[in-house]
Amino acid sequence: MPVITLLTDFGTQDEYVGVMKGVILTIHPSAIIIDITHHIAAQDIVQAAYILKSAYPYFPKGTIHVAITDPGVGSARAILAADINSYIFLAPDNGILSLLAEDARKIVRVENFRYCLPTISRTFHGRDIFAPIAAHLSKGLAIGSLGSEVSPDAIKQLSLPMSRISGDGITGEIIMTDRFGNMMSNIRAEDLDSFADQNIEIIFKNKIVSGLSHSYSDVNPGKALAVIGSRGYVEIAVNCGNAAEYFDARSGEPVQIIRRSPSAR
Amino acid sequence: MPVITLLTDFGTQDEYVGVMKGVILTIHPSAIIIDITHHIAAQDIVQAAYILKSAYPYFPKGTIHVAITDPGVGSARAILAADINSYIFLAPDNGILSLLAEDARKIVRVENFRYCLPTISRTFHGRDIFAPIAAHLSKGLAIGSLGSEVSPDAIKQLSLPMSRISGDGITGEIIMTDRFGNMMSNIRAEDLDSFADQNIEIIFKNKIVSGLSHSYSDVNPGKALAVIGSRGYVEIAVNCGNAAEYFDARSGEPVQIIRRSPSAR
Amino acid sequence: MPVITLLTDFGTQDEYVGVMKGVILTIHPSAIIIDITHHIAAQDIVQAAYILKSAYPYFPKGTIHVAITDPGVGSARAILAADINSYIFLAPDNGILSLLAEDARKIVRVENFRYCLPTISRTFHGRDIFAPIAAHLSKGLAIGSLGSEVSPDAIKQLSLPMSRISGDGITGEIIMTDRFGNMMSNIRAEDLDSFADQNIEIIFKNKIVSGLSHSYSDVNPGKALAVIGSRGYVEIAVNCGNAAEYFDARSGEPVQIIRRSPSAR
Repeated sequence: MPVITLLTDFGTQDEYVGVMKGVILTIHPSAIIIDITHHIAAQDIVQAAYILKSAYPYFPKGTIHVAITDPGVGSARAILAADINSYIFLAPDNGILSLLAEDARKIVRVENFRYCLPTISRTFHGRDIFAPIAAHLSKGLAIGSLGSEVSPDAIKQLSLPMSRISGDGITGEIIMTDRFGNMMSNIRAEDLDSFADQNIEIIFKNKIVSGLSHSYSDVNPGKALAVIGSRGYVEIAVNCGNAAEYFDARSGEPVQIIRRSPSAR
Repeated sequence: MPVITLLTDFGTQDEYVGVMKGVILTIHPSAIIIDITHHIAAQDIVQAAYILKSAYPYFPKGTIHVAITDPGVGSARAILAADINSYIFLAPDNGILSLLAEDARKIVRVENFRYCLPTISRTFHGRDIFAPIAAHLSKGLAIGSLGSEVSPDAIKQLSLPMSRISGDGITGEIIMTDRFGNMMSNIRAEDLDSFADQNIEIIFKNKIVSGLSHSYSDVNPGKALAVIGSRGYVEIAVNCGNAAEYFDARSGEPVQIIRRSPSAR
Repeated sequence: MPVITLLTDFGTQDEYVGVMKGVILTIHPSAIIIDITHHIAAQDIVQAAYILKSAYPYFPKGTIHVAITDPGVGSARAILAADINSYIFLAPDNGILSLLAEDARKIVRVENFRYCLPTISRTFHGRDIFAPIAAHLSKGLAIGSLGSEVSPDAIKQLSLPMSRISGDGITGEIIMTDRFGNMMSNIRAEDLDSFADQNIEIIFKNKIVSGLSHSYSDVNPGKALAVIGSRGYVEIAVNCGNAAEYFDARSGEPVQIIRRSPSAR
């Protein structure tokens, strides 16, 4: 029986997430529902896209991932269902799925609202559209029943800051900060393949961070480090501390990786 | 198998909610437990009552809704079990159930503590009384086994601010604010039935909000609007923004709906 | 089928907890997973140890409790699996289990990583080690299969402030504060056995708190009280209020219990 995951910016202070689960269980009483997070910053589609990309492959194949950060709820924005790497995704067409689209086996635009609640509000599609459709998908409904296929090129893209690789190094920026204050950049592990660990230096907020570490405890408590984080990107961290506070930095802050000059060693 | 929902002001930083679930699963290992929210403002019975009323009907019939905001824990306040619209409710007799009481088929005051934990503390009835009774209810215990019936008139009422409808318009106030900063008033959708959409104006914090919108995106990003929210009440919102911050407003703030004079158009 | 509980300092804003659940369900699709809390203060091992001790016995026997506050992730710190009072525990060897170790039937140091994810990162053992091992334990794997036994004396201890009992009274300190602002001390209920309720006075922040109360409502709203909290320790609280704010106090603040002189009554 497939798992349904929920990833939203709804927070947990209101009844919104609970109500979505109630709707799902009404339609499919034995559904297994797992929260990825409901604390995406309000209306932050970029954060939702990265978190979804980081989380989805750790669930059983066939899991239905429902991702809702939806400032355009009630407008003409479309809703997409997608089959990507043996997972099913359901999300507004606002860029949340764009990081995954190139791997899609099939994407459909939802045009058939027969599986939704009888009354569809224009402010809470999570309850009225996403939850009931997810419940039906978990009971075996094929995404092809929901609407007509669209090309991956036709869905909304995020305009994301890209890291830039040159002969001298890599320039990127902070994308998001986690609960511990670890700051994830858009520089991927594989971007570093042509730079050996011992030959690089990370520049952040006009400070030199020790070369790439393997774990937080490679430096003394309270000291800054750079590490390949669990999502596969370069992260700036502080051992037993909070890098966002330590550097007084936030998303958008540049991160620079340079070759260390041999004479400087 | 019935679902058990939990709605409390316990927060999630402590073990309190987890412990309630442990107690339930010890008594009923296959119980399905869903959180509505645990972030009701500490001891805010009014918020709990509105959230419960908004959430409960979206769950499968027969669901057992446990609602605890209980400043009087350990005092002589009673505990109620109720059968309302084919759902079972369990809550302190402090007003949480008062918005639903007129629809009750049966309400009992809990007098039989045989189904509770062997030791009942006077500070954590969620663990010692509510959780074990809910578990037994989910196994089929009838609420009649818990105590003697009481009249809906005999339970504690909330003293709630009521909206007032006159020929010229409606006066209400903000009841609560959600995660997005959307501010819910006590003016219900049906209160507006005698005012056509195009003929009203909403006054809030000495500003005129555009007439009733259908969705957030009916106005430009950053602009304020009024909308019938997903709970069926008039809400003040800001498209892609936070109305509570925009208006610097909080619960109790007056909301006025007036007929728009034809000459002013 | 055993329950798996999760107690971490991961927070809920990131995908970390959801990913752990995905890993568990991939290995054991019918696992029942319950959150104790994910809001342990970042890297606060003492708080994690007390919360775990307070929560674990309320779950069904055989429950697998996974507790992760792990500033040393990726270092040489060991991971422990333990069989204590018919529950299974899985945690880093950093003191989290030390409050329970004296009751252990068996403790092993994890040396067999065959049950982990194929790639083990050095920053997220929750996903790569703890979750998959917990899933296998819930399927019946014996902890003896994970590594060799260690003595309870050999595991890392917490250095905890201890309460001191003398003929005149007891001196302790605040250990942690809950969601309501109730402040838990390290003075246990049994420490008070030799002092009759009516004969003691509690001194906190240079104020005399009324003698030990039975419930919050024993004093008027807004008044301070001391009570044996649901965890079995003396707590400082304010009826319908927040003691941490009322006293402007935090962890480490001394709490003194003295015999009340008969003449003073």
